[in-house]
Order: sequence, then structure tokens, then C-alpha cells
Amino acid sequence: MRGLDLPTEVLGHLDLAAFSFLQLTGRRPTPEQGRVYNALLITLVEHGITPSALAARLTYAGAPEALQAAVAAGLCGLGSVFVGTTEGAAAMLAEELDGAPDDLDLAEAAARIVAGHRDRGQLVPGLGHPFHKPIDPRTPRLFEIARECGLHGRYVELMQRVGEEAERVSGRALPVNATGAIGALCGELGLPLKAVRGLGVMARAIGLVGHILEESEQPMAVRIWRRVDREASAHLVESSDG
Amino acid sequence: MRGLDLPTEVLGHLDLAAFSFLQLTGRRPTPEQGRVYNALLITLVEHGITPSALAARLTYAGAPEALQAAVAAGLCGLGSVFVGTTEGAAAMLAEELDGAPDDLDLAEAAARIVAGHRDRGQLVPGLGHPFHKPIDPRTPRLFEIARECGLHGRYVELMQRVGEEAERVSGRALPVNATGAIGALCGELGLPLKAVRGLGVMARAIGLVGHILEESEQPMAVRIWRRVDREASAHLVESSDG
Amino acid sequence: MRGLDLPTEVLGHLDLAAFSFLQLTGRRPTPEQGRVYNALLITLVEHGITPSALAARLTYAGAPEALQAAVAAGLCGLGSVFVGTTEGAAAMLAEELDGAPDDLDLAEAAARIVAGHRDRGQLVPGLGHPFHKPIDPRTPRLFEIARECGLHGRYVELMQRVGEEAERVSGRALPVNATGAIGALCGELGLPLKAVRGLGVMARAIGLVGHILEESEQPMAVRIWRRVDREASAHLVESSDG
Amino acid sequence: MRGLDLPTEVLGHLDLAAFSFLQLTGRRPTPEQGRVYNALLITLVEHGITPSALAARLTYAGAPEALQAAVAAGLCGLGSVFVGTTEGAAAMLAEELDGAPDDLDLAEAAARIVAGHRDRGQLVPGLGHPFHKPIDPRTPRLFEIARECGLHGRYVELMQRVGEEAERVSGRALPVNATGAIGALCGELGLPLKAVRGLGVMARAIGLVGHILEESEQPMAVRIWRRVDREASAHLVESSDG
Repeated sequence: MRGLDLPTEVLGHLDLAAFSFLQLTGRRPTPEQGRVYNALLITLVEHGITPSALAARLTYAGAPEALQAAVAAGLCGLGSVFVGTTEGAAAMLAEELDGAPDDLDLAEAAARIVAGHRDRGQLVPGLGHPFHKPIDPRTPRLFEIARECGLHGRYVELMQRVGEEAERVSGRALPVNATGAIGALCGELGLPLKAVRGLGVMARAIGLVGHILEESEQPMAVRIWRRVDREASAHLVESSDG
Repeated sequence: MRGLDLPTEVLGHLDLAAFSFLQLTGRRPTPEQGRVYNALLITLVEHGITPSALAARLTYAGAPEALQAAVAAGLCGLGSVFVGTTEGAAAMLAEELDGAPDDLDLAEAAARIVAGHRDRGQLVPGLGHPFHKPIDPRTPRLFEIARECGLHGRYVELMQRVGEEAERVSGRALPVNATGAIGALCGELGLPLKAVRGLGVMARAIGLVGHILEESEQPMAVRIWRRVDREASAHLVESSDG
Repeated sequence: MRGLDLPTEVLGHLDLAAFSFLQLTGRRPTPEQGRVYNALLITLVEHGITPSALAARLTYAGAPEALQAAVAAGLCGLGSVFVGTTEGAAAMLAEELDGAPDDLDLAEAAARIVAGHRDRGQLVPGLGHPFHKPIDPRTPRLFEIARECGLHGRYVELMQRVGEEAERVSGRALPVNATGAIGALCGELGLPLKAVRGLGVMARAIGLVGHILEESEQPMAVRIWRRVDREASAHLVESSDG
Repeated sequence: MRGLDLPTEVLGHLDLAAFSFLQLTGRRPTPEQGRVYNALLITLVEHGITPSALAARLTYAGAPEALQAAVAAGLCGLGSVFVGTTEGAAAMLAEELDGAPDDLDLAEAAARIVAGHRDRGQLVPGLGHPFHKPIDPRTPRLFEIARECGLHGRYVELMQRVGEEAERVSGRALPVNATGAIGALCGELGLPLKAVRGLGVMARAIGLVGHILEESEQPMAVRIWRRVDREASAHLVESSDG
């Protein structure tokens, strides 16, 4: 495994996230990188009933003998809508910072990013959140951990400046949300851009197993579906009455 | 393809279901078998918002660029609960009838089946239906088509007798439902038992594509999820208030 | 179901493909449309050991109790690479022909398409085939069926002219392949563009069920994998020797 | 999250595996439990080209825009064959030990287990390994870590005794393999039986992301498939020649 002997050099020496970091980068993380990476992955585990968690629970209800297929079903929806903004934030920062000179002006870079998105009529990824108002409490905590670990560098700073610039230009509160924070931390950790969606997928797999075990003890999926089905039928009856 | 040249002997000569029959059995269906097999597969396409359809729609909402993954997610739940009774009915009939002598007494076979399930505390598969009262209108129609096609043989008759016997013994209305009818028709068509789950899977794939295109035009999945999420949050608040 | 009563108006009256056409378009196909649509779907069923079929067989080897998950795994790979060219061909034709005036000059349209792809450095979708030399025998047969059914209109003609123009410009043999033919027929049938990937998915689901039943009787997946694994190990040994 | 505030009590305080342990059991692991659980999960990450990894790589080759679907395809095969023995080992030990009196005679329990499997004509799960001869080097290392952590209790001991008893009775070398070791450690950690398949699924998701990133840089799946396809075609030609 990347030059390490699994039984003697990995087992008992690396934690699961550090092992994944090694797989994705070929580098063993420093303890500081490991701490930030663990926090980032835990943030990506799904905590609530997301659409993906609901799909996994519905799948489990139909095939309880195939837990693996229920997790697979939940993962299938982690595409452009639900995982895309983390990827988008990471790519946006990478475009300005990967290989940039040391004296890059971050204020100018932030202005360039915000103006570019405005011109293309796109939302800046990683800002704002429908539920967490006024701020997403995970963001300051992730940045605090990064600071403690000496990993609060240009990616984090640029992400924050992008948020400030977007607020200034739009006149609306647009704090950095957890997807923006994670995108920035991926840059600090030197993770390849292609890996970013992968982080979401692996973290959600862990969360989905938790959801499915909960479903096996306290079923909710079929109850939800029954209500939907009842309403759909009622709607059909109304429609055909009309 | 099973000894036929695709361009010259299949395209324009066989319909899609007949082609699938050829794949599964190695035999080209007679026109009568083809008609019954088409009706059976159409019955298996999902028509309403089943749990599997809802899972596929939720998946599509997260990854609209990957329609194939949304169909895959919907298929993952077609396991023992949602497709199992068709398999169960087919297996139950096959156990009595495959290779049975011509003079097998069907009344005795039906009694044996019902008593066996009672002894094991199992429900007889293929009987009753929560929504279709008093009878599932698809069952008499499928059996009518089978009769028109000369395929109303011992599998259909035994399935009907099992329903009558179960009603007699339990004192409850337990008419043959569509899964029981399909299980019986699989026997009439000589389909291998292993293929029965496959029929549900292929038919549902067709239905799921329809669901997903409908979702792309009239989204409902995210609206459903939002309500679930809101209620889950409300419940959490209540719980933590308590 | 789209205004038809399933038991009395669909079962026994429509074939499976016609039912799918009704689902996707809201229209009952004419017999001619039905014939072309059946031929198109059968062409999309996978006939050989494609990557998707191999993935499904490997999945079945690990979870034979969950046939539905093996089909799902096979579908997951039907993305931009393997189904994309059919979509690309259909979109390319739709861009010129949907809503075009009756007197559109097809020769000019074909030249515009080929020049546009050249300028963007893209391959024209639907032309050439690595295995079928000199021509894909399915294409003339599909077009012949379309002609017999009165559905050999502008989409088919433009596709053929695109092939001729591409051959003229490139100096290479670039006959219309089956993906190009199917893209053209989708246009003739008035299928929505979004449905095109869906056709591939539903047709492959049928093919995958066939593959998996074959795998259950004549296993090949694990044998293939064992060889791959052995070679990978040998390679590792070589590498570490080097 | 299980009574802990995510930003302030989890992020920066728990590692990813500890967080998953909390999800599955409702308990925060002790440092010792955390160390064993991390080692166990890392062992379950797939290291080589398993059938599931090959299925994921083939899927990625067809749909590189949907990494999540490639991971999902890889997970779909983690059923009774590939993950079943870990589950089987855990269940076999749980049946004897969960709720057993302190003075249970482990030698008798081991004899009962081996005799029971012999009577039913079943292999004892968790013993022997086709590739690792004479012993699976992960097993002693996992047990060593468990010992260091004070988690080398009755589950581990019974598993070892089962191996010894099976060797005695069969006269063949049947050392405890990694699946048996993991099954035993699940017991030591008090993980619910239902969670065992889930552990494999979450660990493999991590491994599959690594495989897919490797595939994106050094493609091997399509090359493998091409060879299979070529051989299948050659075989068809031979067959039709014969």
C-alpha cells in the first residue's frame, strides 16, 4: 500500500482518514493535516434526512437483505446539485491559487472571482445557506481548527475574501458556508481536485450506513412513501373529478 | 443472438418483449406467448409513486446529469419485499407443477400449499391486496388474455384454487392479485424461476425512465423531501424541548 | 395511465415498447412508429460483453441474492462515454431540424455540422465504428425498416448526408453507425431529447438481465477477475523486483 | 448528533472512525476502542483489484462524469459472497457469547460450533485463505492491537479456538483469516450484528474512491474489457466454425 506494509506500518499506526489521505495523495498526512482532514470528512457525513438519505432508506425498505444496495442508491444522487458546490468552490480557488506567485493580491483575486461569476450570471459557490442563518456554525469551527493546525493559508483567506466581496457587491449576507470551507481546506491540504467529489462520496457512505441501521430499528421511509402515495392518489381523483 | 442474425432475423421481425423472451429462454415465443408475455411485463412496469420510483426521483434531483444512476437507484430496492411475492408465487406453483404427472390433483395440491404456509406461519404469496378491493382488476384481465391465447393451464388453475382454498380456510377475501397472476403466467410460459425477479427489474427500468422524465418536467421529489426534513427538524426541536 | 385504463385498454392491446412510447410521449404510437421503436430498442439492448455487462456480472458474483443490484451496477456506467454518442447524434440533428422550415437545405446543414465539429476539434457523433468494417450492418437495416414504415424523413436524410460530408472532408470511411441511426430515428419518432439516454438505459436493463442469467449458469466474471488479479500481483512483484 | 453538538463537541475532537462508531452504537468509543475500530476498518478497505473494484473502474470508464455512480456500482456487489463471511463469523460468535454466562466453556463452545457446521455441511466462516499461506498476516497484527488495547476477550479467544478445533478435526491448516479476526473484534467492540455488513460497505467506499482516482490517471479497466471482448468474439467465431 503506497510503499507501506499494511500489517506492520499501517494497522495501529494510521487512523482511517489518514489512510484515505495516503491513498488519495500518496503522502502520509502530518498530524495537523490529519486533524483537519478528519474534521472535513466528518462535516461531509450527512447528518440529517437529505434526499440521498431518504432514497437509501426507501431502498432498504424494499430490499433489507441488501444493505449494500441501499447505500449504493443513496450515493447515486451525489452529483452536480448536492456535491457540486464543494467541487465548485475548490475549483474556483484552485484556478487562482494553484501555482500562483507568492505575492498574488488576494483582494484582487476575490474581486476577479466575484465579477466573473456576475458576468456569467452564476452564483458564487460556497456562500450562503438556506437553513443556517446568519452563519453556518461549522465554518468558523473548521477555520479555527485549520488555524490551530497551521493550515489557515491562502485558500482559506481567499475564500473568506470572496465571501466579503460578494456581500459588498450584492448587499446581502453571504457568509462562507460549510461547502466553501471544505473547498478551501481541500486546497490547504493539497488534495487533487478530482478527489473532492470522492470525499463527499466516502463520507456519505459512512453516514448512509448509520441512516440505514436507524431505519432498520425505527422505520420511517415506508410511512413517508405511503403518505406521498395517498396524496398522489387523492390528487388523481381530484384531477379526474375536475 | 441465440442463432439468429440480429439485422436480418430480429430487427423488424421481433418486438422488444419477444426479443427478451428469446434471451431468457433461448426460444422464440409463439405469437400467443408473446402476447401474454407483453401483458405480464406491462403489468410489472410501475405505474404509481412506489418507494422505488420516489428513490429514483430523489436521486435524479441530486444528479440530473446522470439519469442512468437515478434508474439504478430505483432498481436497488427491488428486493425481497417489493418483488419477492411474485417470485414466491412462481416458486410455490413450480414446486407442485414442474415435472408433475398429468393427473396431479390440483385441489389436493392447493390444500397442501395452504396448509404448508399455515404450518410455517407464512402468508401465501400472490393473494389479497391492500389497495385493490374487492379484487385486483388486472388479475381477471391477465387470465382472460391467457385464456384467449391458450395459455390458461395448470399454473393459472392452481393459483386460483390456492386463492379459493385460502379464503375457505381463513374466512377472509383473498383473491389472486397481480403478483400471483404473474407468478402463474411465468409458469405457463415456461420461464426459469431465476428469471422472475429479472422480469420485475427490466419492467421497472422502463417505468423508472418514465418517472424520471416526468420529474424533470414536474419536479416533486425535492418538495417531498423538504417537508420530511422540516418535520424531522420540528421533531428534533420538540424532542430537545421535552 | 395517460388517460387509458390499464386492464381494459392497455393489457392485451399494446406491446411493451408501445407502452413505453406512450409513457415517454403521451402518445400511443402508430403501428409504423411502434415497429421502428421496437427495432431501435432491440438494437440498444447490449448483445456482447460490454464494460457495463462485465460490471454487472462481477457484481452478481459477489451478491447473487440481489440480482437487481447487479443490473443497477451495470446501468451506472451508461454515461457520457457509452451512451453519449447516441445523445450527441440526436441533439446534433435536433439543433438543425426541430422547428426548421420545410425548405431547409440539408446539404448545407450537413456541411455546417461537419465544419462546426471540425472547428471545435470534436468528432461528429454517430459515424464510424471500431469493429464493424466497412459498415455497421444494423444501420441499413434500421433505415430500411424506417423506409417501410414511412419514417425515413429529414432526420435520417440529414444523418446520412452528415456521414457523406464527413467522409468527403476527412478522406476516411465514416459510415453512419448504429448510434447515429438511432439518433436519427429518435428524431423521426418525435421523442424528446431527454428521453434518448433513457432509451439506452431501459434497453440495457433488459440485456443485463439476460447477461446475469447467463452468468448464473455459465460463470465467467470471477474467472476474468482472477486473471486480472493474478497479473496485477505479478506486476507488483516485478515492480518491486525492479 | 447523538446528543453532541457537531461544531463544538465533534469537529476537532473525534476522528472519522470514532464518529462512525458513535453513529452506529450511540456511544463515543474509548481511545482503545477507537484504535481497534480504526484498524478493523482499514483492514476492510479494499487494497487489491477485487471484483468490486473492477466493476467500479469499468463503470467509471463509461461515466467519468459520475464518480459517485462508479462507487455505487462497486458497492452493489458487496453481498453474501464477498462480505458474507465476516458477517457469518460475527454471527457465529455472537450466538455463543452474547449474553452468555461468565463461566462458559470456550473449548466446548468451539467444539459445538465446528460440529454444527460439519453436520450442516457448511464451511466455518473466518478460517483459511486462498492467497495468504500459511497465515494471513493481518490476523496476528489485529489481535496484537486488540491485546494492547485490552480488547482481547472472549470473542477473540473463541474465534481462535474455533480455528484450532477445525484444524484438529479436518487435519488441514485453517488459521483464522482477516474476516474471522474482524468478526471477533466486532464482538469485542459490542457492535450490533446488523452493522457488520455496513462496516465493509463504508470501508470499501473509501477504497473505491482511491481505485477510481487511480483509474482516472492510469486507466486499466477498458484494456481489460477489450481483451475479454476480443476473446469472447474469438470464441464465438470458433464456436460457429465448429
